[in-house]
Amino acid sequence: MSTPVTIGFDIGGTNMRAGAITEAGNIIDSTATEAPHDADELQEGIVRIVNKFRADHCIGAVGLAIAGFLDPDCEIVRFAPHLPWRDRHARAELQAALGVPVRLEHDANAAAWGEYKFGGAQGHDNWVLFALGTGIGATLMQDGNIYRGAFGTAPEFGHIQVVPHGRPCACGKRGCLERYCSGTALEQTARELLADNPITTSILSDHPELTGKTVMDAARQSDPIATAAVTSIAEWLGLALSMVVDILDPGMILIGGGMSADHDVYLPQATEIMAANIVGSGYRPVPTVSTAKLGGNAGMIGVADLARQLFIDKNQQK
Amino acid sequence: MSTPVTIGFDIGGTNMRAGAITEAGNIIDSTATEAPHDADELQEGIVRIVNKFRADHCIGAVGLAIAGFLDPDCEIVRFAPHLPWRDRHARAELQAALGVPVRLEHDANAAAWGEYKFGGAQGHDNWVLFALGTGIGATLMQDGNIYRGAFGTAPEFGHIQVVPHGRPCACGKRGCLERYCSGTALEQTARELLADNPITTSILSDHPELTGKTVMDAARQSDPIATAAVTSIAEWLGLALSMVVDILDPGMILIGGGMSADHDVYLPQATEIMAANIVGSGYRPVPTVSTAKLGGNAGMIGVADLARQLFIDKNQQK
Repeated sequence: MSTPVTIGFDIGGTNMRAGAITEAGNIIDSTATEAPHDADELQEGIVRIVNKFRADHCIGAVGLAIAGFLDPDCEIVRFAPHLPWRDRHARAELQAALGVPVRLEHDANAAAWGEYKFGGAQGHDNWVLFALGTGIGATLMQDGNIYRGAFGTAPEFGHIQVVPHGRPCACGKRGCLERYCSGTALEQTARELLADNPITTSILSDHPELTGKTVMDAARQSDPIATAAVTSIAEWLGLALSMVVDILDPGMILIGGGMSADHDVYLPQATEIMAANIVGSGYRPVPTVSTAKLGGNAGMIGVADLARQLFIDKNQQK
Repeated sequence: MSTPVTIGFDIGGTNMRAGAITEAGNIIDSTATEAPHDADELQEGIVRIVNKFRADHCIGAVGLAIAGFLDPDCEIVRFAPHLPWRDRHARAELQAALGVPVRLEHDANAAAWGEYKFGGAQGHDNWVLFALGTGIGATLMQDGNIYRGAFGTAPEFGHIQVVPHGRPCACGKRGCLERYCSGTALEQTARELLADNPITTSILSDHPELTGKTVMDAARQSDPIATAAVTSIAEWLGLALSMVVDILDPGMILIGGGMSADHDVYLPQATEIMAANIVGSGYRPVPTVSTAKLGGNAGMIGVADLARQLFIDKNQQK
């Protein structure tokens, strides 16, 4: 048995991943499995994974990064589009089942905390994580604290209407920002450009599996359709970031999420568009735009660190 | 000579108004004059008004609500579209000229403080003032503090692009929210509807002075063009408020500004549209939407109260 680790979970709609994480934010053991679609089975699956880790590690606390809405006290999972939990008191139930302190956190907030403690936001107190992946996630960090709003849901940029009568969104509305500025938007824009330009020669024309990632890779090879699609994403991201600056006025913006790995392809253009579109452009400081450092592990590492605080608090009370 | 009052100024592009204001937020004396267009003359005009008040009142401190960008410490007026000050250290200069503590504040923030202390937001700690007038102003209050952002400019909703290639805006961009959701937008929408519907009978057709206010009054008389214009404003306001809720997640929204007096005409519809368009609609609490209580005096009263704190601090140090 080594010194206590904390277990960090990243619970997504398809998979759940977990890691045994040290005080320095290092993952020393990890596992991944499909996420059960039944509410109770999801909880049992989490307990099973923690108990497996117990064979090799002394566990001080457990943290779960959740892709969904929590209450402001992080006790209840109100609603998660891709998870079976609805108004579930997940924190207390899991803590009772596991016998160690449990911490829940919204996945973007957990990732922001990870980047703040161990990644690209170290030393920054007022900044925004803008996570670009399947959709958009965002966190505002203020004086080293996660901004939660009155009901725990802020800040959500993905479903702001940016095009009246625009692309339909799974949320039921049309013209949401996510439909123009995300990995799935990149794919859709490429498909639309292919359909509108049938005589243009493109690697993507007969691609067996068109995704945001394949479009990004084709843009690196100067494919004309892919390049046009990436330019569209860069323009929308620039506008989205100008919205972040106008409304939240952060000192720094960190781009995270699955698309951040390819930042060199679109971020310089997006940053220029951001600076040109903010209120008072030319008469006010412009925040720096940087990229996340912990990749897909940021949420797991962040929530494990937040959970560690419970473990420390518990021991200080003794 | 009575007990000390504080002088609150509301400095706009056309006029400046000032009031002698008591600890309870009551205006016991007031004056208004044109705002000089020269930077030094503006300062001299302010000094002259304060000195006039000195004949009748004991003045403890002076506050100025400014329609422009300040630095986060409220020392410097960086840029104000309709004022002659640019990067001017207005607070220190005025304090030296007046011999009493001086406080600067952004006009929407000052109005929010006034409503928080004496008006429609009393008892609310996490809320947003959304001011609808010529343009849009907004303030986020958090645990009783004004949210400033890293550079003192947050939150600005007026120049978010909501219609690609939309109406041109004085800011140089196109499709800004203010161009669809403000008093000036109401006027423009009515003009466009009149042009597009030449055979519709409308009070507004030959109106000698078409403004947002005349359109609002015509809507109260069920004029078809005015009603359609107000409906458009209500729809855009609903979307704007859903943006406020998604991004800032306040516990309450207070509608202020010149258009708030006519809230009964558009706000019920706007509030419904807001609730239908927020993220997680149906799975999360919806903030109440209420209206400001201090009218056009909110900024003056608010900044006078903020200035009073300096006076109290000064006396406590003695």
